[in-house]
Amino acid sequence: MSTIFTKIINGEIPAYKIAEDEHHLAFLDVMPLVKGHTLVIPKKEVDLIFDLESEEFKNLWAFAQSVAKKIGAAVPCVRVGVAVVGLEVPHAHIHLVPMNSMQDLNFTNERLKLSPEEFQGIQNAIANA
Amino acid sequence: MSTIFTKIINGEIPAYKIAEDEHHLAFLDVMPLVKGHTLVIPKKEVDLIFDLESEEFKNLWAFAQSVAKKIGAAVPCVRVGVAVVGLEVPHAHIHLVPMNSMQDLNFTNERLKLSPEEFQGIQNAIANA
Repeated sequence: MSTIFTKIINGEIPAYKIAEDEHHLAFLDVMPLVKGHTLVIPKKEVDLIFDLESEEFKNLWAFAQSVAKKIGAAVPCVRVGVAVVGLEVPHAHIHLVPMNSMQDLNFTNERLKLSPEEFQGIQNAIANA
Repeated sequence: MSTIFTKIINGEIPAYKIAEDEHHLAFLDVMPLVKGHTLVIPKKEVDLIFDLESEEFKNLWAFAQSVAKKIGAAVPCVRVGVAVVGLEVPHAHIHLVPMNSMQDLNFTNERLKLSPEEFQGIQNAIANA
């Protein structure tokens, strides 16, 4: 059974894509903690990130590093925070969250509701950073 | 000026060490969110984790992966969560947090106060896992 992320990878569900290569995809979280909140996933469907084979794991983080630098350049923030929680979707994913305070990385916070135009504006700013 | 983490690396401040190699160190957070909360750091003093050179960045995560597997084997949890926040100490560090619910990775939570014996018990369980 495909996860929602595999459906995004396959183009069955739309997403605001930030970056993509053969094995990885980055796209905006549709329920963001803050503007610029981005998800980075391996295209391989695996639940626990630490179960990725060592090279796959390292390459996923290398991809995340390049995405984080784009976010840091495009979104005003003190730094780009990282979280791997994964209690919702059983497909390993890294949260990259532009942070201005500790409270910005609190996953029990209410999520932002953004318009398609707002998402597109953020997508373009990060993707072209 | 040395950060508190560099003082731990140099043995000037004690820590409950979990694992160490030439370039990396893992030790228990002394103000843990939950039992088993561990910090993974590069010995190189750098503030922003994404500023590490690509190979250093990947090797740090590879080291964190091996530590996370030990934590997952030693500490009862649904999964080992990951966070990089870094608004407190200006020396890049990865939080590895054994999670049973989303609330366990909330950095605004009150921290646990554990006795030296409790820290040592957790240290031994993870280091020998």
